[in-house]
Amino acid sequence: MRAVDLIRKKRDGGELSREEIAFLVAGASTGTIPDYQLAAWLMAAVCRGISRAETAFFTEAMLHSGEVLDFSDLRGPKVDKHSTGGVGDKTSLIIAPIVAAVGARSPIYVPMISGRGLGHTGGTLDKLESIPGFRVNLSKREFRDALAACGCALGAATPEIAPADKRLYALRDVTGTVESPGLICASIMSKKLAEGLDALVLDVKTGDGAFMKNEKDAIALAELLVDTGKHMGKRVVALITDMDQPLGNAVGNALEVAECLEILNNRGPADLRALCVELAGWMLFLAGSAASLAAGKQIAEEMIATGRARDKFRQVIAQQGGDARTVEDPSRLPRARKTEEIRAARSGFVSRVACEQVGRACVILGGGREKQDDAIDPAVGIVLGKKCGDAVRSGDALCTVHYNEESRLREAVDLLARSFEITDAPPKPQPFVRKVIGA
Amino acid sequence: MRAVDLIRKKRDGGELSREEIAFLVAGASTGTIPDYQLAAWLMAAVCRGISRAETAFFTEAMLHSGEVLDFSDLRGPKVDKHSTGGVGDKTSLIIAPIVAAVGARSPIYVPMISGRGLGHTGGTLDKLESIPGFRVNLSKREFRDALAACGCALGAATPEIAPADKRLYALRDVTGTVESPGLICASIMSKKLAEGLDALVLDVKTGDGAFMKNEKDAIALAELLVDTGKHMGKRVVALITDMDQPLGNAVGNALEVAECLEILNNRGPADLRALCVELAGWMLFLAGSAASLAAGKQIAEEMIATGRARDKFRQVIAQQGGDARTVEDPSRLPRARKTEEIRAARSGFVSRVACEQVGRACVILGGGREKQDDAIDPAVGIVLGKKCGDAVRSGDALCTVHYNEESRLREAVDLLARSFEITDAPPKPQPFVRKVIGA
Repeated sequence: MRAVDLIRKKRDGGELSREEIAFLVAGASTGTIPDYQLAAWLMAAVCRGISRAETAFFTEAMLHSGEVLDFSDLRGPKVDKHSTGGVGDKTSLIIAPIVAAVGARSPIYVPMISGRGLGHTGGTLDKLESIPGFRVNLSKREFRDALAACGCALGAATPEIAPADKRLYALRDVTGTVESPGLICASIMSKKLAEGLDALVLDVKTGDGAFMKNEKDAIALAELLVDTGKHMGKRVVALITDMDQPLGNAVGNALEVAECLEILNNRGPADLRALCVELAGWMLFLAGSAASLAAGKQIAEEMIATGRARDKFRQVIAQQGGDARTVEDPSRLPRARKTEEIRAARSGFVSRVACEQVGRACVILGGGREKQDDAIDPAVGIVLGKKCGDAVRSGDALCTVHYNEESRLREAVDLLARSFEITDAPPKPQPFVRKVIGA
Repeated sequence: MRAVDLIRKKRDGGELSREEIAFLVAGASTGTIPDYQLAAWLMAAVCRGISRAETAFFTEAMLHSGEVLDFSDLRGPKVDKHSTGGVGDKTSLIIAPIVAAVGARSPIYVPMISGRGLGHTGGTLDKLESIPGFRVNLSKREFRDALAACGCALGAATPEIAPADKRLYALRDVTGTVESPGLICASIMSKKLAEGLDALVLDVKTGDGAFMKNEKDAIALAELLVDTGKHMGKRVVALITDMDQPLGNAVGNALEVAECLEILNNRGPADLRALCVELAGWMLFLAGSAASLAAGKQIAEEMIATGRARDKFRQVIAQQGGDARTVEDPSRLPRARKTEEIRAARSGFVSRVACEQVGRACVILGGGREKQDDAIDPAVGIVLGKKCGDAVRSGDALCTVHYNEESRLREAVDLLARSFEITDAPPKPQPFVRKVIGA
């Protein structure tokens, strides 16, 4: 088999066989196929599309390009959640402790391998690292120990996990070949299935701050993800959820951790809490720890209300080397030296918060990265004072910018000032969970 | 400007500006854009197509990525011919001496930079190198001296000529991105225009042995080539000519040189002679050395009939270090040790000679290369005994295989035996020159 023939086949709209896709993926993980041939194949796949069968083959081949974790010695279902990424999307830090806290009642494990922020979106690992001392780069052994001790582990992928995806993901980012549902699906599912899961809840974001801007694309991706997961014998559902404005109020790593602590302390923004309960409810239901979604959500609410999820998070932080006192004293988190408020120029109702722009503003402040090696400032970010539907009066604070460097402030402020749309009438409310796929 | 944005733009079907294309081509020639990004862009260009304007920008940028030769101190028009490549296509070796021989009457120059064979097609440089001692790797100075002394020079491109094309050409070959009319056009025209030409005759091949198998594609490419050349201020015509069977009888480097000497000695196959006269006639007409195409063809015929073209070729060989006695004594050319004839299994008329297969058979014998670094055997090849329309009787020799290695013979013979189709009725004759574009 020759790579150039498989490139031509895809270029001409052909469908690759299981063996042909396995050959490409093996070439990607072992390095026998050079970057330029992979890049040409990826672009042909983006332009011509890849079928459901090809997506399944691709996922399988990437999964088996590395190690599949085996936690079968830990008795109880393994379940995880994956979000396609957005702005202020911090649910992982809340959900993992909620679900793990249920383990005191019936065993359940959340082996959660997460990623870093890229582009205008944040990443769970970056958020966790803003907790003083918290280590996300766990060895396989440390990850297993944390999972056994706490019922959840929050870490980065080790090099053994889907090495083909690592190479292809880096290549896609610089060759304009990210936007293919099949490639996105294979990348997500190969990494998640490597966690040795029984069940998976997918949070597929749609709206201005998501990678899938329109709902139709989000649904198509969700269907592909669910199909592929089920094809691999997993219990999977996908929720299509709103990302037309940031989730919760905080955007920026330490600011978001503080907001998670609010939720775990039974306070905090309603939209964030509701989504966490929804997702955790689905996880508990799919894992068999709750008899229905409603029961699952009730258990999740209980874990928050009783403080058991907060206690679990404290245990997780300690287990992974972090300063557990942060849970009671969020002032131990890094804090920006200065703040500036952006005020409403007129009275009315907030009808739109340009979500991607808010994410970009956070990156500009130093809170995110444009390239994979960029360093980030954990303290900076934005806290929204008003969200869609809120009434405002001229001069009200729309958001507060937390910043350290004067030189980065102006561009961020300009962007944020243009991000709030105020109209005379309130906007029509949108359902937050737009659709559930695979239930 | 960032390469990834230009990749995305083309992926989404956008049209790149002159500056954007100049950025990509500069990145290709200086190495600041890595292969994988170039490969992704090339595949996007193949899948989405590139416009006439983009093709012109691409040609210009590639041309100016290197040096444009300047022969303005040599008084008289500079004219060349380019063929898109085929099997047995040896016209350059005959045409260059014909046109240069006219220089004794009115000054005219043929600065002919040629290529090597690739895939199933032969290359002028390989053919010339089968003449003992003949040097094609001339320095810029040697090329100029040869041009000044003989009126023509036959050489390989120096590293200074269109370096961006060198890199992109090598990359296209291994990434399945050869088949784009715009990219083909830019590659051809950037190299030809670097010769500092006033006029150019293009021989665009169509049929089984050509890269453009169907006439519609060949015409579209020819129109693009002519448009691009005219846009750059050159006098250009393109002839769409038949490559449904090999040109002339000989296929293989030294065998083809011997056939060229036949023509220059006023003998040889009629189809080859007619095409050479046609192409040389157009060159003389476009260069202003003949008042009409008919007059140009008459002059070309005269150069052959009087032996002046042969004398010119002798001078060229001597100038470029070759053994000029070869012209009178073709037995000085390398000769294969063994021959084998392939005979007709039935009587009738040859209705088809599978042209690409004959080219492939020559490659299998060692006469061509699959990869750019392969060594070739100049002596081996095939001489056709029968061509389309010829009557045959069972047992007649259809062709003679000239070979050196027994191990390569069988596969070539199998292919050749399947390459001749014999039917009861003769095939309908096809015009050899199908169309003239840009006249």
